[in-house]
Amino acid sequence: MQISDTVQQDLLRVAHLLADAARPETLRHFRQASLSAENKDSAGFDPVTEADRAAEMAMRGVLARERPEDGIIGEEFGVTPGTTGLTWVFDPIDGTRGFISGTPTWGVLISVADETGPRMGIIDQPFIGERFVGGFGVAVNMGPLGKRPLQCRKTKALSDATILTTFPEVGSPAEGRAFHHVARQAKLTRYGMDCYAYALVASGQVDLVIEAGLQPYDIHAPIAVVTAAGGIVTNWQGGAAHHGGQVIAAANRDLHAAALAQLQESLAS
Amino acid sequence: MQISDTVQQDLLRVAHLLADAARPETLRHFRQASLSAENKDSAGFDPVTEADRAAEMAMRGVLARERPEDGIIGEEFGVTPGTTGLTWVFDPIDGTRGFISGTPTWGVLISVADETGPRMGIIDQPFIGERFVGGFGVAVNMGPLGKRPLQCRKTKALSDATILTTFPEVGSPAEGRAFHHVARQAKLTRYGMDCYAYALVASGQVDLVIEAGLQPYDIHAPIAVVTAAGGIVTNWQGGAAHHGGQVIAAANRDLHAAALAQLQESLAS
Repeated sequence: MQISDTVQQDLLRVAHLLADAARPETLRHFRQASLSAENKDSAGFDPVTEADRAAEMAMRGVLARERPEDGIIGEEFGVTPGTTGLTWVFDPIDGTRGFISGTPTWGVLISVADETGPRMGIIDQPFIGERFVGGFGVAVNMGPLGKRPLQCRKTKALSDATILTTFPEVGSPAEGRAFHHVARQAKLTRYGMDCYAYALVASGQVDLVIEAGLQPYDIHAPIAVVTAAGGIVTNWQGGAAHHGGQVIAAANRDLHAAALAQLQESLAS
Repeated sequence: MQISDTVQQDLLRVAHLLADAARPETLRHFRQASLSAENKDSAGFDPVTEADRAAEMAMRGVLARERPEDGIIGEEFGVTPGTTGLTWVFDPIDGTRGFISGTPTWGVLISVADETGPRMGIIDQPFIGERFVGGFGVAVNMGPLGKRPLQCRKTKALSDATILTTFPEVGSPAEGRAFHHVARQAKLTRYGMDCYAYALVASGQVDLVIEAGLQPYDIHAPIAVVTAAGGIVTNWQGGAAHHGGQVIAAANRDLHAAALAQLQESLAS
């Protein structure tokens, strides 16, 4: 949909308010000895924390006050329909395993989407005090080093690329094989960065993130941030990524094409 | 050797000065587009950065002024003999691969050792602005959440433990198998944290770090910090770890014994 400049500015303003509201709720629980993680998924280890719920409640409170007619999709409390055609999508703590391990790699994911997908998003890391914002003409990082533009880098060859994913197994055995088929051709492979990996692509520090098994709320904000910085995010078939599942984020189109071809070669073999 | 309270206080004071001196030198180069990494080891990817050298030079400058008679072992500029029986051991940027990827998991490692090994150490993360200090009666973390005591946690069973290592391959194929033999029995495995992993053990956030192929300067400071927080760091045979190689850091003796037994079972099979 067409979003006026005035509305874009208001959405950016509210996105910052949402990130501001989530910060104290997550930090109240981060690195606390009493942090208790429930087991949400009996098949695996997917902890939900008090912080997750408190941060989402705080953000829903901001929206009820500031933009009550927008829709909401949140990881913890599900779907709230709206009437404006705009939907806020958030994951109050992306990277809960990182969160309960004390690593500074989790983040608060906030985005606003229309019928075409995410239009603007924030990846916020409250412990470091770092925020990555992309969309509506904005592509900026604010953190310990000040305010800096986000700009993906120009790495063209897979053999020059740094590639990231969170877990070495990635997803299914076939998905894991496809990831490692690409990673073997890269210069450097790193693990464990959660949503911070996408922020590093947008910051021009790394070149590729390849993941599988994502939820829509895991990837909406990263799509907005990476795209605003000149990168490209799709699924492993080259289509829209905001429905989740298999995702590849690349610093530029050439690298995206090279990595996608290798993923598909592995999946077809 | 016996180190008087007065000397201990002076060593702590100087250790903080060293960390303070290294911070601007590392941050000047962190996340810069112009960061150029040389290839130190033709067999692998082990970049040395300008930041590495500048930080070590800055620290050597502090020691020349403050404690000129102590020895120095630095990653970049080697051994400078001393006459006091005390040797400063530092790695100006531990986790250079993390550094050149923009992740906040690298650190400045500073320690002071006598003939028995490290007695006090600092793990400093300049980008976050976080410092972990252990030794001479001190065990403290200073960072975004304020000043907090370091205290390893009480996790006794491997099945309740969170285990970290930086690279999933760990070291040689046999070393990798041994790590994964332990990791399969743990509750949660995470990768990619560089020296920050040891700081998380000392902070009571995770339980085990198992690595191989370390240099002495990689592990001196972590030994001091983890030990001061009540943890235990040895090699995979249960002996002194400060010579490098295979290292296991555990939150407590029970967990150390359990993990060590599993490592040795795998190596013997």
